[in-house]
Amino acid sequence: MPKIQKILVANRGEIALRVMRSAREMGIKTVAVYSEADREALHVRYADEAVFIGPPASSESYLRMDKIIAAAKQTGADAVHPGYGFLSENEDFAQLAADAGIIFIGPSAKAIELMGSKLAAKAAVAKFNVPLVPGTSEPISDLTKAKKIAAEVGYPILIKASAGGGGKGMRVVDKESDFEEQMERATSEAKSAFGDGSVFIEKYITKPRHIEFQVFGDQHGNVVHLFERECSIQRRHQKVVEEAPSSVLTAEKRKLMGEAAINVAKACGYYGAGTVEFILDDHLDFYFLEMNTRLQVEHPVTEMITGLDLVKLQVKVAEGEPIPFKQEDLKINGHAVEIRVYAEDPANNFLPDIGTLKTYNRPQGIGVRVDDGFEQGMDIPFYYDPMIAKLICYADTRANAIEKMIRAIREYDITGLQTTLGFCLFVMQHEAFRSGNFDTRFVENYFTPAVLQQNPVAEEEMIAAALAVMLQQQEKVVMAETASASTGGVSKWKANRLK
Amino acid sequence: MPKIQKILVANRGEIALRVMRSAREMGIKTVAVYSEADREALHVRYADEAVFIGPPASSESYLRMDKIIAAAKQTGADAVHPGYGFLSENEDFAQLAADAGIIFIGPSAKAIELMGSKLAAKAAVAKFNVPLVPGTSEPISDLTKAKKIAAEVGYPILIKASAGGGGKGMRVVDKESDFEEQMERATSEAKSAFGDGSVFIEKYITKPRHIEFQVFGDQHGNVVHLFERECSIQRRHQKVVEEAPSSVLTAEKRKLMGEAAINVAKACGYYGAGTVEFILDDHLDFYFLEMNTRLQVEHPVTEMITGLDLVKLQVKVAEGEPIPFKQEDLKINGHAVEIRVYAEDPANNFLPDIGTLKTYNRPQGIGVRVDDGFEQGMDIPFYYDPMIAKLICYADTRANAIEKMIRAIREYDITGLQTTLGFCLFVMQHEAFRSGNFDTRFVENYFTPAVLQQNPVAEEEMIAAALAVMLQQQEKVVMAETASASTGGVSKWKANRLK
Repeated sequence: MPKIQKILVANRGEIALRVMRSAREMGIKTVAVYSEADREALHVRYADEAVFIGPPASSESYLRMDKIIAAAKQTGADAVHPGYGFLSENEDFAQLAADAGIIFIGPSAKAIELMGSKLAAKAAVAKFNVPLVPGTSEPISDLTKAKKIAAEVGYPILIKASAGGGGKGMRVVDKESDFEEQMERATSEAKSAFGDGSVFIEKYITKPRHIEFQVFGDQHGNVVHLFERECSIQRRHQKVVEEAPSSVLTAEKRKLMGEAAINVAKACGYYGAGTVEFILDDHLDFYFLEMNTRLQVEHPVTEMITGLDLVKLQVKVAEGEPIPFKQEDLKINGHAVEIRVYAEDPANNFLPDIGTLKTYNRPQGIGVRVDDGFEQGMDIPFYYDPMIAKLICYADTRANAIEKMIRAIREYDITGLQTTLGFCLFVMQHEAFRSGNFDTRFVENYFTPAVLQQNPVAEEEMIAAALAVMLQQQEKVVMAETASASTGGVSKWKANRLK
Repeated sequence: MPKIQKILVANRGEIALRVMRSAREMGIKTVAVYSEADREALHVRYADEAVFIGPPASSESYLRMDKIIAAAKQTGADAVHPGYGFLSENEDFAQLAADAGIIFIGPSAKAIELMGSKLAAKAAVAKFNVPLVPGTSEPISDLTKAKKIAAEVGYPILIKASAGGGGKGMRVVDKESDFEEQMERATSEAKSAFGDGSVFIEKYITKPRHIEFQVFGDQHGNVVHLFERECSIQRRHQKVVEEAPSSVLTAEKRKLMGEAAINVAKACGYYGAGTVEFILDDHLDFYFLEMNTRLQVEHPVTEMITGLDLVKLQVKVAEGEPIPFKQEDLKINGHAVEIRVYAEDPANNFLPDIGTLKTYNRPQGIGVRVDDGFEQGMDIPFYYDPMIAKLICYADTRANAIEKMIRAIREYDITGLQTTLGFCLFVMQHEAFRSGNFDTRFVENYFTPAVLQQNPVAEEEMIAAALAVMLQQQEKVVMAETASASTGGVSKWKANRLK
């Protein structure tokens, strides 16, 4: 296959910039696409060329395969990188690109399709002896049969709508005597919500951790894994803090899970970057959840501990090159933590808090990486995911990476809207997180909006705001000859920028 | 020794921020000192406390030991970090701090004093069989004796004033027949400039490379080296591009030079961070130049390839802790390049170009680190070194680190004054640098202001400026539906920020 000359990035925000930076380092030209809402976005400015593709709504722009393929043809792009979200796991898009003679930087359409179907994926990986959460393999609506299966699996069990999503039609049943009532409720809820009353029964994992493995395949049948990412800290069933490596895996367990992840990739003839998600219980038994057939939001933590640039590796594999290393060449170096900085209000159930970045100054320094798509004065558009940035901290040990993250969060200067920074600071300072003894229920177990009141970021921003008002009343800012401790440090840092 | 609780940083700019960030990650409070010119500087804002120490001139503020020690006492700082420059290699300051019961984060006053005298340093290290540039070990003024020594050393030789500096009283002599005339000129020049006509005679290295080794000692007699830095790209005898590792050292040569560097440190009972500078000739023979008894400007490249935080290590060693690893535990991981972004005009003999940072946007992304002390709108003060920032790029190989640096330089958006960015881009693209076949005469051999005209950064800034004028004439910026290649990429990136 020939070398890629020009990549169209079919995405926006931080991931579009992320991809373009690596392309540029490889001497590859870049094409941005943009909606009406993103006319002045950084990814548009950064690209060598930019093509307008429609109104703000994703369905009219970033999800329009026809317009994106047309843009690639128009600009002579010989490859398309889908990023994550949008069309990244759409097999039709992958096929459409291939049919147009454009390299899709991702797996085959067939692999996307197979892993896109939870049932087909489970059936495929089961043949490779990858452990699955015990339960039904097919939807069920018969009460008696369901009860029998529940007994076999062992309580607590989970009933979930086969057509469901987002927690709808989901029930946890602790003991057999509750089963019938809960099953009836779940099926009727599922029927009214999705028009399909059939459900799955599966083992309910009481202290689940979300651990995923980064895999990489090439077009010559080689597959390696790049170790795990711990993504158990979630809000609204979405990741918000990730780290690599996980603090609970032993070398032996890592090896076992890594082999299982490679088997999942092999089960679908996978090439490119992919992520195999597992659920881990409190006995460290692991079960396959699903495979994401794209680059993951949290891929930077893997880059930090392996020293690899995953986008460059994606490009090389898409060009037909073999993976330039073997599993045994890889080792974990240090520890990386990532937080997602969302324009959300943690005090209001993490609902989006869209607005303008009145001030926006990134933290800096050794081991700090910020991947974002905004700068001061910009609006966070209403139409898309409200992620402002990913803040990644890397150090020699987990404890040092956490301390660095605390320092970086305090240094991050964002005003004009609410963000997850304060919540993430709470996580970094919480004993459960620091000790490594946490699971996906961290938020429900420990977090209340009240904790943000004791939170230095929030507190300092209040001081900063108060100071800013004071400062506005003065003609010229005169620093105290010796700043007192109460207005010192981070609050002063931020207050001065509010001027 | 007890743990350090509060560090006063006796410096300004990027290095003050650099030190404070690591201190903060260690849970240590920070105190800034500042002159009249630095009232609004970032290091002042960032510190927990800040003490005003005097007028802008260094001699009235950052060099005033009495005021700085008083500030430490006043704020209860139990340690002082001198950074580089200013008082960092002043043995009296180290002693004054020690006498006041304040931990000096650096070597002993005695080690500073010994290495501060070139003659004493050479005498000390010679005992450890560290190779010195062949020549006189003592100042000489007798013509006949001098000529005899020159013949022994072998031509070409260098005559330099014993009291000299900055190239004054320095002469290269290619052959014996020229010696007498040059010697007479050198001595009379030295006499009129320094009131002392005595000179040194030494071997003149024709293709010298500046290679230095980072060493680290603790207070228990352990000394290790953290490999080398290549610092041959210099302008006005000052480093402007540094990298680690060097592209010319073999593993064997690295081991030899590393051992010599450790011996230099042992020759003065060194502890803390230090740098042993060598000159390397085109046969890869190396000679001791001098030891810098402080953290070096270019220390980040060493941090990148070792994964160590040298400031944290300095603090631990100052607290009395042993170095937590052995020489054999250390290995080089990847490649790092640093450029110094100075407010200087490369087209005008690299003279300072002081002014206001009209726009200032840092490059970002994987493997990019910017250490600076400024933000948009700030002035670069006239009184101090005109360094704006250090841009460090890290990747798996030298070639990839260079490509990353090119990408990052183009992404760096600085307007309002001339900088060394364009010059550094020229270096990164130059065959001599890329091939590794260069020496300290790179600038005189290859650089003329004319090359900057062909330079993309400069060119794009012209396009950007032109675009900015255009844009100002429009009511609203309307992006072309498809940006053309000629206005695309970096120039667009920068133009939009000029609005």
